[in-house]
Amino acid sequence: MKTLFHAFSILILTTWPASRADAQERRHNLMPTPAEVHFQSGKLTVGASFSVAVSGHNDRRMEAGIDRAMRRLEGRIGMELKRGLATDATGPTLVIECREAGRSVPSLDEDESYSLEVTSGRAALKAQTVVGALRGLETLLQLVESDRDGHYIPSVKVEDKPRFRWRGLLFDSSRHFQPLEVIKRNLDGMAAVKLNVFHWHLTDDQGFRIESKKYPKLTGKGSDGLFYTQDQAREIIAYAAERGIRVVPEFDLPGHATSWVVGHPELASAPGPYQIERQPGIFDPTLDPTREEVYQFLDAFFGEMAALFPDEYIHIGGDENEGKQWDRNPQIQAFMKERSIKNNHSLQAYFTKRLARILQKHNKKAMGWEEIMADDLPREVVIHSWRGPESLAEAVKKGFIGLLSAGYYIDLSYPASNHYRVDPVAADKNLSRQEEARILGGEATMWSEYVSPETIDSRIWPRTAAIAERFWSPGSVADVDDMYRRLAVTSVRLEELGLTHEKNYRSLLRRMAGGKEIGPLETLVSVVEPVKQYNRGKQRPTTMLSPLTGFVDAARPDSEASRQFAALVAGFLADAPRFQTNREEMERALAKWRDARPAIEAITRRSGLRDVEPLAAELSDLAQAGLEALACLVESKAPDGQWGEVKMAILQQAAKPKPSAVEFAILPSVRQLVIAAIELPQLRGQPPLEWHKRVKTLAEVARPQ
Amino acid sequence: MKTLFHAFSILILTTWPASRADAQERRHNLMPTPAEVHFQSGKLTVGASFSVAVSGHNDRRMEAGIDRAMRRLEGRIGMELKRGLATDATGPTLVIECREAGRSVPSLDEDESYSLEVTSGRAALKAQTVVGALRGLETLLQLVESDRDGHYIPSVKVEDKPRFRWRGLLFDSSRHFQPLEVIKRNLDGMAAVKLNVFHWHLTDDQGFRIESKKYPKLTGKGSDGLFYTQDQAREIIAYAAERGIRVVPEFDLPGHATSWVVGHPELASAPGPYQIERQPGIFDPTLDPTREEVYQFLDAFFGEMAALFPDEYIHIGGDENEGKQWDRNPQIQAFMKERSIKNNHSLQAYFTKRLARILQKHNKKAMGWEEIMADDLPREVVIHSWRGPESLAEAVKKGFIGLLSAGYYIDLSYPASNHYRVDPVAADKNLSRQEEARILGGEATMWSEYVSPETIDSRIWPRTAAIAERFWSPGSVADVDDMYRRLAVTSVRLEELGLTHEKNYRSLLRRMAGGKEIGPLETLVSVVEPVKQYNRGKQRPTTMLSPLTGFVDAARPDSEASRQFAALVAGFLADAPRFQTNREEMERALAKWRDARPAIEAITRRSGLRDVEPLAAELSDLAQAGLEALACLVESKAPDGQWGEVKMAILQQAAKPKPSAVEFAILPSVRQLVIAAIELPQLRGQPPLEWHKRVKTLAEVARPQ
Repeated sequence: MKTLFHAFSILILTTWPASRADAQERRHNLMPTPAEVHFQSGKLTVGASFSVAVSGHNDRRMEAGIDRAMRRLEGRIGMELKRGLATDATGPTLVIECREAGRSVPSLDEDESYSLEVTSGRAALKAQTVVGALRGLETLLQLVESDRDGHYIPSVKVEDKPRFRWRGLLFDSSRHFQPLEVIKRNLDGMAAVKLNVFHWHLTDDQGFRIESKKYPKLTGKGSDGLFYTQDQAREIIAYAAERGIRVVPEFDLPGHATSWVVGHPELASAPGPYQIERQPGIFDPTLDPTREEVYQFLDAFFGEMAALFPDEYIHIGGDENEGKQWDRNPQIQAFMKERSIKNNHSLQAYFTKRLARILQKHNKKAMGWEEIMADDLPREVVIHSWRGPESLAEAVKKGFIGLLSAGYYIDLSYPASNHYRVDPVAADKNLSRQEEARILGGEATMWSEYVSPETIDSRIWPRTAAIAERFWSPGSVADVDDMYRRLAVTSVRLEELGLTHEKNYRSLLRRMAGGKEIGPLETLVSVVEPVKQYNRGKQRPTTMLSPLTGFVDAARPDSEASRQFAALVAGFLADAPRFQTNREEMERALAKWRDARPAIEAITRRSGLRDVEPLAAELSDLAQAGLEALACLVESKAPDGQWGEVKMAILQQAAKPKPSAVEFAILPSVRQLVIAAIELPQLRGQPPLEWHKRVKTLAEVARPQ
Repeated sequence: MKTLFHAFSILILTTWPASRADAQERRHNLMPTPAEVHFQSGKLTVGASFSVAVSGHNDRRMEAGIDRAMRRLEGRIGMELKRGLATDATGPTLVIECREAGRSVPSLDEDESYSLEVTSGRAALKAQTVVGALRGLETLLQLVESDRDGHYIPSVKVEDKPRFRWRGLLFDSSRHFQPLEVIKRNLDGMAAVKLNVFHWHLTDDQGFRIESKKYPKLTGKGSDGLFYTQDQAREIIAYAAERGIRVVPEFDLPGHATSWVVGHPELASAPGPYQIERQPGIFDPTLDPTREEVYQFLDAFFGEMAALFPDEYIHIGGDENEGKQWDRNPQIQAFMKERSIKNNHSLQAYFTKRLARILQKHNKKAMGWEEIMADDLPREVVIHSWRGPESLAEAVKKGFIGLLSAGYYIDLSYPASNHYRVDPVAADKNLSRQEEARILGGEATMWSEYVSPETIDSRIWPRTAAIAERFWSPGSVADVDDMYRRLAVTSVRLEELGLTHEKNYRSLLRRMAGGKEIGPLETLVSVVEPVKQYNRGKQRPTTMLSPLTGFVDAARPDSEASRQFAALVAGFLADAPRFQTNREEMERALAKWRDARPAIEAITRRSGLRDVEPLAAELSDLAQAGLEALACLVESKAPDGQWGEVKMAILQQAAKPKPSAVEFAILPSVRQLVIAAIELPQLRGQPPLEWHKRVKTLAEVARPQ
């Protein structure tokens, strides 16, 4: 469900209103933004005497959640707080009033709402359920600020509940196995931004990652020994439940099934033998939907998994089945003919229906990728849209419930703003209110072809926090600049949970450089991003066994330096024809990039970083082009003769695919400057309005190509 | 065994020869330096075709070790290597010839020797045992270098074996519990620098950290729920054994025993009740050595532990028992009188003997801190010296075997050079060869009063690599400058094992600052160190429950910037009376420190870092003093009137204990400059020799006070 992503641009609602949500009366650092938040004057001091009491319902999960929150608060304020709940007469700082435990297994119907009122004397958190209280505690922690006098929470009233009930992160443990501690710290991150579904992609062509006691050959032959025992899975389920997060397991069928058939070739639609797949992509091995033994196997297997995973849903995949093995198998062809099954899609529908019935027998509901949709499928099946919003709209119009992942593919290396602008409810699909209500929410997808335990956090965070806001907050919360401002704060706060997204890239650079002097490499890595979509695999062929310790692994999506530079350029051009705004800052940045070349090359040559070495020269040339363009604009003087052609050639060169599999994120801004330098001086003598019109069209040329 | 450390300075052999070891013909990045290493011309290219074969003995541990090494090699060279052992006809790149498996449980008698020969065509690693081969693989990885053409291993012949058989790291899991993954990554670090004993300090006043199935109240009441299950302990033991590392558990008795008696007050020498100790220090609760029930309990407990821990040694602590409960207990006093036991030391000896006999019964040998030494103790007991080398000398003269930890207390925040200069065999103790042979080696001690899972690596690494070299390499390997050069490389390479010593401090700073702009704080943190000894507890009272997220936690021992500055100052003063060498570099450094103040204060004020705020002004004043001193020297002009007094007052102010519990590591160098500025210009007109004499005495004033 991931090789194509053509629908992405359609989803970007460029006309989204840029105004701040009404409820935001004051700059805050909350993410996701609550449904309603009203700041008041005054503040609650947060010091060593901070204490918590619970009134109404209380239980072990609540106390554990409070304890975790208090430990984080201690870390922030650098002071020890009293353990346990307050019992002293002076009155606690925070009173949590909770009505009931909520579901013992977190469910789609969990009430996650809460209200929070902070005055200068006291904080009061009210929630129907423990999970609601946990959500409120995260908001409370996000409200903590500081000034010279120490830490405090501003007086505020918050009324909050999620817009969508299903707010997930798909976590692919198949392509690259991830140890338990990686999952745990990411569950903590999810809870911090109020996500509530951990979609655990446990099987795929590249590895079968969950122990089956009934069928030990599944992991015995299909996992390289890298799998979760059932005890470990229970540990993760409990850890997630503690944080109000559901664990929805995915067993991808009937395609993406190589790892199933390595140990059980008898399930496949062709004889085998099979080996664990090491390449990324779409592969032929597919279960045989025509044999009863296959269903007997699946019945036993899903019976076991239904007992292990308490959630009411099991994801059965269903994506990207090209049916090649079916086409070539005479028995399958005969079966189809006999039953008047017209094509592979219908054959898969037959398989899905039978599988859904098996799940029903084990008291589970099925969900699957959009390809499983068929008219005679029960409407309780959840349709998971990955190719675009059309299929989701079609699903809810047909009466299915569904959720959206198209637009939230964080493995494609797009900036957070792209995902942030995608709404689970597409504005152009004319859905009725009932149809809209069938859209449960969405999931960010961390497909793991190109991530290791060392790099995965940097692919999930901080961008997923922006997606979490899209799922939780009112649709009117849509100011991209403000999102980025809060995202930077959120990103640092997420580090307190042990997440490594802000720190591991420097470790990679140090090891690449063979030492601690990595300043020049940091300069370079700050202006590049991993290539978008799945182009990495083309430019830098990588199997599932390849080391993920290259420059592209140190590079991170959504380059901050480039985004800041783009903002500088926009301000500079808007100042036409004067061209003074941001000028010096741009000159400094460009000069730094131009001049970094010798220092970068000194490292890359010493360290054998052959694929990184050419980037230094390209960066230098880009920056030089930018500086020259800037000078032309400032002096309002058209560049000489061939200048434009030469510089555009440099831009083209720098935009070419490279074995390093990174791209210059500053390139669109430099292109904008160069084209501006070519075009704008021709307007000399014309009124500013004419300049501004032309500048507006220039913003278009700056888009990534 | 840790509150006093007065013997430290005695141990520093200041007369240590500064020459490089003869065997080092070429600058290399090996740590520990092998016993013999001879580089030759030529090199072995390390690329995607690198492969390994084993001749002679092979087993699962060997293959797992090779696999780990190859995965690390892949990460370095950025290329995928073929999995498994080579079987192709072209011949493998590395042939490992191994004679035998070695002990199934790693032991003191393990043969760890190996030889390695690398030519331009092939690498050959020979070892008697698998552990020897693993040691050789670490050397091989350390030999990998790079240039513009890629990665290679220089042609070399290595003959290597350890100088000492016992090369340990004490890891205190009691004061601050450390999760399994923290232990695992540190075991990987230990293996990388050829340490072979993980001394696991499992019980102390502040927590009982190992499950006893016989006595569940030990952890049930004594651990806050933070303990290792027996399965987890087995996991650690197996993980260590895989890497040729012994696990020696310590159960500290009869003192340091609070956590024992919380659940079992009947064991104590006073009635109780008891609570888990939250303070650092020495406490009264002590087992009662006069009651048979206590020995019955210990017999059953150690029977259980003897079955759990396969090593032949069990450490029984024995340190810092002040016997206060004994003095106050009439029954104990009567017992002593009855048996003519003269004092508490003799009573403890009685206890130790009985405990040693219990261990013998369970086929274990006892070891303990130096206080357990007594004439009638069996000579198989290992004496562990912590207060100074005298007790170790005394022990081996009495026929005991022993090891040294005095001088290797990495929790005291001394620089690596201090530890590096300490030799397990003290030169001034006139030991015979037989007595020397009874010194088994030493252990670095990571007492955990002030470390969290987030900071512990930065207290262990990289300094412990220098200690590991002291334990493994010939005593003649003693060039401190070269040690630091190699330590910097080693430190970065250790990061590939997931160790966090180079990366976590910036995460702490970001969270303190509430954002990513931490440059000014980095400047400040680079020139400070945590205060030495156990002064932290005095300056910044901290219990075991306090957060460890302060500036002192981000500060690291052995400030590199300060060491580099000290070297600049030394070179500058040696250039007297010209004073030009290093001048500009020093001016740049000092100016940066002087000018950082406003930016640091902008952060500390915004972030409520009240204890950090005053440091900015002090740093600025120190740097200004240094700049003025420098100017006086360059101009060969005595400073005006009160200048010296004023500046010395500034130095004194900056040297005062602070609530931040850090100290300026640049202070000695600045003091040296200031005193030089006061004294040296008086020599005007005298020959350079006179200047140099005075400069030499100045080096003394620069020492930390």
